[in-house]
Amino acid sequence: MNQSVFDTLTLIGIGLIGSSIARTARERGLAGSLVICDSDPEVLARAEALGLGDRYHQDPADAVRDADAVFICVPVGAIEAVTCMIAPALKPGAIISDTGSVKMTPATVFRRHLPDTAHGIPGHPVAGTEESGPDAGFATLFDQRWFIATPPKDADQDAIARLTAFWEGCGSTVELMDAEHHDRVLAITSHLPHLIAYNIVGTVSELEDDTKTEVIKFSASGFRDFTRLAASDPTMWRDVFLNNQEAVLEMLGRFTEDLTALQKAIRRGDGAALFDRFTQTRDIRRGVIDAGQEIDAPDFGRHVLD
Amino acid sequence: MNQSVFDTLTLIGIGLIGSSIARTARERGLAGSLVICDSDPEVLARAEALGLGDRYHQDPADAVRDADAVFICVPVGAIEAVTCMIAPALKPGAIISDTGSVKMTPATVFRRHLPDTAHGIPGHPVAGTEESGPDAGFATLFDQRWFIATPPKDADQDAIARLTAFWEGCGSTVELMDAEHHDRVLAITSHLPHLIAYNIVGTVSELEDDTKTEVIKFSASGFRDFTRLAASDPTMWRDVFLNNQEAVLEMLGRFTEDLTALQKAIRRGDGAALFDRFTQTRDIRRGVIDAGQEIDAPDFGRHVLD
Repeated sequence: MNQSVFDTLTLIGIGLIGSSIARTARERGLAGSLVICDSDPEVLARAEALGLGDRYHQDPADAVRDADAVFICVPVGAIEAVTCMIAPALKPGAIISDTGSVKMTPATVFRRHLPDTAHGIPGHPVAGTEESGPDAGFATLFDQRWFIATPPKDADQDAIARLTAFWEGCGSTVELMDAEHHDRVLAITSHLPHLIAYNIVGTVSELEDDTKTEVIKFSASGFRDFTRLAASDPTMWRDVFLNNQEAVLEMLGRFTEDLTALQKAIRRGDGAALFDRFTQTRDIRRGVIDAGQEIDAPDFGRHVLD
Repeated sequence: MNQSVFDTLTLIGIGLIGSSIARTARERGLAGSLVICDSDPEVLARAEALGLGDRYHQDPADAVRDADAVFICVPVGAIEAVTCMIAPALKPGAIISDTGSVKMTPATVFRRHLPDTAHGIPGHPVAGTEESGPDAGFATLFDQRWFIATPPKDADQDAIARLTAFWEGCGSTVELMDAEHHDRVLAITSHLPHLIAYNIVGTVSELEDDTKTEVIKFSASGFRDFTRLAASDPTMWRDVFLNNQEAVLEMLGRFTEDLTALQKAIRRGDGAALFDRFTQTRDIRRGVIDAGQEIDAPDFGRHVLD
């Protein structure tokens, strides 16, 4: 067991990410005491039934009173309200972080609402599955994944070190980055892919019923890979797009330009242009595998289906 | 071991699909004798080194002389040339099929070039991986997959039955369909998803090198799922788009309309529209899993990366 990094850690929001942090912290002894908070009484009761923490509160202010660290694990759009509720109740020296996929929003919110005695450091565990809720979490979710922290320029070095120690204890590799840069990189690696996946699955959902049934039937030919991303939590993703509007629209613009060029090549029967484009993309796959971000197995190593 | 369906089966093109058919036919005794043909002498030599067949020919006419069945396993754009080369050498009663992802092209080609004594029945095993070449094939590729045959209206019933028996012997479920209908359904289940995957990976490949490195580093957040499809064989996919132009452009039109609506919702900050769209798509994922086309495991059941 590791030495605990925080005497008392409060998790606000106990969905996939929050409940995975709870399980990991418990298994690896990263927190002396775990306080769990969720605004939804049913979710909170479920967390208690699963034995995820030591104390359970519906009110965020009650939940953070003794906390050395508070992780806000809610959709990005709810971070400001939570921050306002906990700010007056925080212990001096408490570290406040979050787990959202957009980092400019918590950066602004923490600067605006946290007391000077608290250390606000936005964070993003680059991990997740298409599942949601406290039952979906698991203790190895962050193993061999990135955790990106975006501390403000004047952040307390000791606070950064403790947050880093916690996430390294979860098995993650910690990377420090500017919040604006994070949002630009994630716009293309994560936000645009989810938008496109949602979009094509949406296009299929509007086909006539007969065709839709056939698309599902023959989905192993490509379509099904998109359905995984498009099954992710709608609230979380709505908030991502509302909070990273500018970077997403810019990347979407590039994507659309390129798609228009491919469309034109198909319409004109320009085989050379298509071949060039389809060849250019293989190196990237190699890069993803070499970077240890993917398994080198055909078809994602899926087992044969029953 | 099954009873062999064909005394002599010739496979023209010994890439991923051809070599998987060879391995399956051998393991399950579906053909008395296996003749292998490839226009590339290196690929042919590799097939021989792997012991995939009983005889090896570079010339398609030589390869088909004794064949009861000939499967043309080449990119769709090469089917016509192969058909013209084998037509004069075919045995009366031979069954000619293919494995391309577009079915109108072989339908037209077979009708135009095959002698009346041959039975042309286009076919499509809905299976594959992102790998290519004779080393990439494996005997269980077609297990619990669909094989779609698109026989012409006047096709010989016995020939259809024998082709069906062969693919059922490979573990596939056989579905008969009109060639034009096939091309419309596959345009959305397979062709458009590959086009979009190639496109986003292409967009990334044109980013500045620094950003590209970071996109690869953080690709587990969504982008990497697209890289699998975009690593597929460029020649095969060029030919698919050139040969299924009309249906692909129609589906691409629908996709683009929907994407424009999402773009507008993001620009206007219309959270309700985004939420609605993202909710609508979950049923489709459920449908894909219920139809046995996907494993019900988070993250495709990927193992933790080393």
